[in-house]
Formats: sequence, C-alpha cells, structure tokens
Amino acid sequence: MTRRQVLGAAAAGAVGAVLGGIAGPLIVPPLLGTGSAPEGSSNVYPFLGPHQAGIATPVQDHLHFAAFDMADGATRADVETLLRDWSYAAFRMTQGLAVSATGAVDGDPQVPPDDTGEALDLPVSGLTVTIGLGAGLFEKGGVDRFGLGDRRPPALERLPPFVGDALKTDWSHGDLCLQVCADDPQVAVHAVRNLARIAFGRAAIRWSQMGFGRTSKTTTAQQTPRNLMGFKDGTNNILAEDRAALDEFVWVADRDQPAWLAGGSYLVVRKIEMLIEAWDRVRLAEQETIFGRTKRAGAPLSGGGEFTVPDFGAHAGDAPVIDGAAHVRLAHPSNNGGTRILRRGYNYVDGNNPYGRLDAGLLFISYQRSIEQFVALQKALSSDLLNEYIRHVGSAVFVVPRGASAGGFVGETLFG
Amino acid sequence: MTRRQVLGAAAAGAVGAVLGGIAGPLIVPPLLGTGSAPEGSSNVYPFLGPHQAGIATPVQDHLHFAAFDMADGATRADVETLLRDWSYAAFRMTQGLAVSATGAVDGDPQVPPDDTGEALDLPVSGLTVTIGLGAGLFEKGGVDRFGLGDRRPPALERLPPFVGDALKTDWSHGDLCLQVCADDPQVAVHAVRNLARIAFGRAAIRWSQMGFGRTSKTTTAQQTPRNLMGFKDGTNNILAEDRAALDEFVWVADRDQPAWLAGGSYLVVRKIEMLIEAWDRVRLAEQETIFGRTKRAGAPLSGGGEFTVPDFGAHAGDAPVIDGAAHVRLAHPSNNGGTRILRRGYNYVDGNNPYGRLDAGLLFISYQRSIEQFVALQKALSSDLLNEYIRHVGSAVFVVPRGASAGGFVGETLFG
Repeated sequence: MTRRQVLGAAAAGAVGAVLGGIAGPLIVPPLLGTGSAPEGSSNVYPFLGPHQAGIATPVQDHLHFAAFDMADGATRADVETLLRDWSYAAFRMTQGLAVSATGAVDGDPQVPPDDTGEALDLPVSGLTVTIGLGAGLFEKGGVDRFGLGDRRPPALERLPPFVGDALKTDWSHGDLCLQVCADDPQVAVHAVRNLARIAFGRAAIRWSQMGFGRTSKTTTAQQTPRNLMGFKDGTNNILAEDRAALDEFVWVADRDQPAWLAGGSYLVVRKIEMLIEAWDRVRLAEQETIFGRTKRAGAPLSGGGEFTVPDFGAHAGDAPVIDGAAHVRLAHPSNNGGTRILRRGYNYVDGNNPYGRLDAGLLFISYQRSIEQFVALQKALSSDLLNEYIRHVGSAVFVVPRGASAGGFVGETLFG
Repeated sequence: MTRRQVLGAAAAGAVGAVLGGIAGPLIVPPLLGTGSAPEGSSNVYPFLGPHQAGIATPVQDHLHFAAFDMADGATRADVETLLRDWSYAAFRMTQGLAVSATGAVDGDPQVPPDDTGEALDLPVSGLTVTIGLGAGLFEKGGVDRFGLGDRRPPALERLPPFVGDALKTDWSHGDLCLQVCADDPQVAVHAVRNLARIAFGRAAIRWSQMGFGRTSKTTTAQQTPRNLMGFKDGTNNILAEDRAALDEFVWVADRDQPAWLAGGSYLVVRKIEMLIEAWDRVRLAEQETIFGRTKRAGAPLSGGGEFTVPDFGAHAGDAPVIDGAAHVRLAHPSNNGGTRILRRGYNYVDGNNPYGRLDAGLLFISYQRSIEQFVALQKALSSDLLNEYIRHVGSAVFVVPRGASAGGFVGETLFG
C-alpha cells in the first residue's frame, strides 16, 4: 500500500476519524511485538497499543535517531502539546499517511505545505517512531523547569563512567528523543524532518545519527546480521516471540516504580566508534579469540553452530577455549546473573576523518526494564578484549513511555 | 545468489579463472547498460566490458562515494598497480566474491584476513564500482608526478566558479575516485573499505559521502524518485535504453581526444547543501513556481503529466506560465542547445548542524561526454530561482576510463 492508497482509504472514511486527533475507530491489534513479518517495504506497524512500536517489533534496515533539547523558556504546556503533536503526526506517518490531512500537496497553495513531501508515493516501509524522555525533562542544572521533578524515574540518571568512554557532549544526552526506523532511509528521514519541524520553537535537534544494516535480529525469521567488524551480532538477542523475556527484561512492570512508566522501557544509546583500520590488521585467529566466536558461522569457539550455547568451561590443555576476556564470555547472561537486554543497534559511517580513515562504528541501542541491567553488563565488559578497538564517543539514556491509547498520546501518563 | 553461493560456484570452476588476475573465461554480456533489471538485491552487473558499470546501468538505492589522493612520494608504478589491484578486487566484489580468493575466513588464521567480512552472506545487491581519475594524477602544483602529463585530457580542468558556490576543499577534488553503488549500503561500505585498505600506503581517502534514495531514474522501468525538496527529480534523464543519447551525450567517442579515453566519460560530482528549513517555509505555489512543475505529479506547470514536454511559450495573461527563472526552464535541453547529461545523484543527511538544522542535501553526480556540457548547463542555472535554497559546498571532476578488458584493468589505456 503506498501513501497515496492509504490516503485514498482515509478519504473513504476507513481511518478518517484520525483527522483532528488520535481517535478510536482504528483497529489496534491486541498485541504488539509478536509478529515475525517478512522483511519488506509494505510492513505497517500499529502506533497505538500497550507498548510503543520500534522496540519488540521486527527491526528494520535503516535508522534515523534524533535527540532534542527543549527550547529556553519552553513551558510544561509546550512539553505536553509537543508530545501530543508528535504522537498525532507519528501515528499518521507510521500508518502511511502524510503528516496532516492536507499533507504535501492538498493544502492551500498559498501556505507552506504541512508535509515536506519527499515520502510521497513511497511505501510505508515499516516505519516506526519511538518517543523517549530524557532526564532533562525532569530536572536540568538543578531546576525543575516543567514541574515534572516528582515524576522523575529514580533510575533515570546519567550513566557512570565506563572503561573506553571518550564521550563528547555533542553526541550525548537530550531532553527528548525519536528513534525512527524504516526499511527505506528516505521514509525515516522524512519522519524526523517533519517531527523536527513540528517541534520548531519548542524543541530543536541536539544530535542525530543515520544508521544502516541493523546489527541485531529481533524475530526468529530474521538472519543475524554482521557488524562492521565482520562478526554476527545479536545472536542471543531477546526476540519478539519471547514474551516471557520481554516481560522480565524489557517492559517496566505494573509493580515497578514510577507507576506512570508501566508498559514502557529504558533506552540506552551509545555511539561506539570502531578503530576500523586497526581491527582490519588483526589476525583472524585473534579476532575470533576476542569475540569468542568464529567469524564465518558465529559459532562459539567451544564448538557447535551459531545458536549452540557456549561452553565457558571448555579447556584445551591449561587454556580455556573461550578466552577469559572474550566478548561473548563477559557479555553472556550466564556470567551476568542471567541479565539480558534487547539490542536494536545500527552500523554507521559518517564519512572519514582527516587521516583518510573511515569514521564508522555502531550506534548501540538497547532497551531494558531497568538501567541497572545495562550498567551491570557494561561494567562486566571493562576487561573485554574488544575494548582496544572501540571507543564510546556518545551516550544518552531515555525513558520510553508505554504506547499511546486511542485518543491519547505518548507520555500521557506522565501528565495524568 | 549470496556471496557464499558465488564462492561455491567459483570453487567449482565457473569463475575460478579470475583467481590470480582478471582473466578471460567469464562470459561478458556484449552490451552493458541496456538492462532494465527489476530492483532487487540479487542484481549482478558485469565489471568487464566497453563501458564501466555504474553509469548507464540501472541506478541503485545506495551510494558510497570516495575521493582519494595519492600518497606523497607515490610513483607511476604505484598508480598503475593500484588501478590494477582495484580492478581485480572490484571485479570480484561486483560478481559476488570476496575481495580475494581467501576472503574473510578462508585464509591463514595467523594473518589478517584479506576481506573485512561484513558483506559475508549478503546478496550481491547490484554492486557497481566505478573508478575515476582526477586532474591531480596528470599534474599537481605544476608537477607531473607520474609522467602522465602528456596524457591529460585537455578538458579535465577545475570547474569555473558558479553562482551559489560555497566550496570547501574538504569536500572537493581528489586524484582518484570510487563511485560505489548498491541496493544495500553495507555492501557499498564494504567495497569502499576494502578498496581503501588495498590502497593503503599508495593512496588515502580525501573525502567520502554516503547517499541514499537515488534522485534519478536511469531505466524506463524505474519510478522517478523525489529529492529532499519533495519534488520528482530526473524526469528527463538519459535512460540506459536510449543508446543514441548515450553515444551523443555520455560516452567519449573514438574520434574525441584523448584517444585513450574512448568509451569513457567525464564525471562531475557536486555536494549541494539544501537549506531545508527555509525551503519548508515556502508556499506550495511558490515551490512549484521555482521548479516549474507540480509537486504531486511532477507535471510541467504548462499542463499534462510528468512526461509531457513543457510549453515554455504558454502564457496566462502577460505572464509566462512557467517562470522565466524556473528550474525546469533553465535546465531544459530545449533552452540549452539540446545539451543533455546523465544524472545519477543521491540524497544525503549528515546529521545536523549546531543550530539543530538537518545537514542535508543532494550529492549531484553527472556523466557527460565533455565537461563543457555540465559547465554550459550550470551557467544557465545562474539565475535559477532555486539558488536561494541551495549552496554548492563540494565539487570535483574526474575522467572515467572505459571498462576493463578481459585480462586488463580500468585505466589500462592510460599506460598503453
């Protein structure tokens, strides 16, 4: 279904009720995140529902991530209306509609179009828009700018310093974020651009990042992709089909605090630069030792195939088959009290640095029920052999509220 | 066919003869650039032949463009062996093979792999690698570094200044270039990275640019895509099926000078920043006046559909229906002595600037039989209404030699 066809359907009344506000008649599948839809550009994911799309829904091929800061002098009403306006526009775009009823070409020719138009006639491409709230929304520089301080999730703190951190504020933090994913980058860029336009005067982009070639699988139907080091990544990721793991490790539960965040999740995003040229000069055997897996199949060095459970006790003579500081060992749930996270990262290439080296790496994105899960895992990686070849240059944490209800908006429970 | 399957075919001898050099037995279709292959990730384009692929072959969805400078102290032999090594690796990769016979995982585990591995198991994705030679190869700072000065195409000069130029040397020039296109960005990045690695010590990346969402169609089967201003772009492009136009406007003819460039073309690449937020505040009617076309259908304002020939004489009262400074009028062949070029540009988004605005635009790429075609057209655009919303920040010109012959390499005629 192209955008034009969906617009036709809208004109015929099928989703016409969304005009003027997110309203009820749209049929929302009872459960998000359980699909293993085949990859393809006609995928459409529901925007309304208990959880925001873009977390447990199948990971798409392209990302445009943008962190925003609220404008100086912005008010609590600005925050609320922005979240409402974003939700309305995101709902429309993710369902294949233009950003407003008049869109790119159906408005008064004597005013600027509501929609910028570069996604006209493109398929929906599985677009998801996931909205996050940063610590700055609750308190910044000791000031509770929006009267939301008492709503602050206690766990929403800046992350502690980690080994390998070389963080730049230009690539860190933000009062709000949009994780926009689609199977076509033009569709993702169109969404970020139009949402940034809607925010004008209330919030502006602080940093943003394009990504491609997802580095994780989120459904059993997807192949495990490779990161820019050439290794399969995300073999043991939490999958959309694993409802129990999602409930245990990803979704904030009704009994967790704060109550307004139930059904939501914590988002960690880290821009991880790879020292590509140094890595490329590492011997194959050493590369495999560092990861603890084979490069070809992604199988643990202790044997088997990609999905074989690593045998961390296996020895060859005195030496462990999987090095004591191998990435797979340090990151594995069995060495971290069973802790897991849902990863949803993307590769990036930002051209090259002045020395002619690729400016490239991984925009790591993970979702977890509590920040502590990420902190514990990242601390466990402090002696990771991989650290010699990577550098964390950006970092941000957001809370991602539950999905919008019919007639509501993302973040509505924050103001309730 | 995945890379692995092609490797299997290679092992079985079908293309085994390429190991050790680009050799003869591979069947090369007699004509490149005539296909209108459906978009899809299994496309494979021949590397050998009368013309390099990536010009008249169907335009893919993603681009990684890289300009290189030869190292200080590099010799003529370095240039020749680099072009030979690049051709060998590009041949292999475009046919779905790893960069060498041992590739990412089949070499001695005690040495670094020849291939970086991130494209393992990915489909060929229509990969093309198009190699260009910059003016610096023939003369730089008055010095003929490589004894190639007498081979310099007289037309290979820096472009004259144009209205709207705000060129930065960081985004301009280069002794060599690689235009790498594929339907999967990871496949394109993999090719640039491995070719940069092969160049190590001889040449290094000077500037590079990722692009997406091609802005031109090059076959009748492709839809006309939209640029980031939301307008269809490339409606009147030269198509692969139009052999006569390719011969007249794109390929350097046998009778042209220099003779070693016959079958090649001139490549112009311009990084054109769009003042996105300013453009988005322009009234729809004014946007259409600026382009001279409707936003929805891309039809000329004088009437008809996208492919209707504009009627530049049409008037409404005293005023021309298509403004005297509309983009379509100034750029149209009928107002430029019939001159045409083959466009093959891509949209880009490089994050945002410090003011929260998208750093985005068009990496304009065109191929033409002579630089004069581009210069004349660009001069004609000096009063273009569009100029208020764009800024040319990068510029480079290259000659693109004919395709490699069996057993030869791209650029072989330069050394003959």
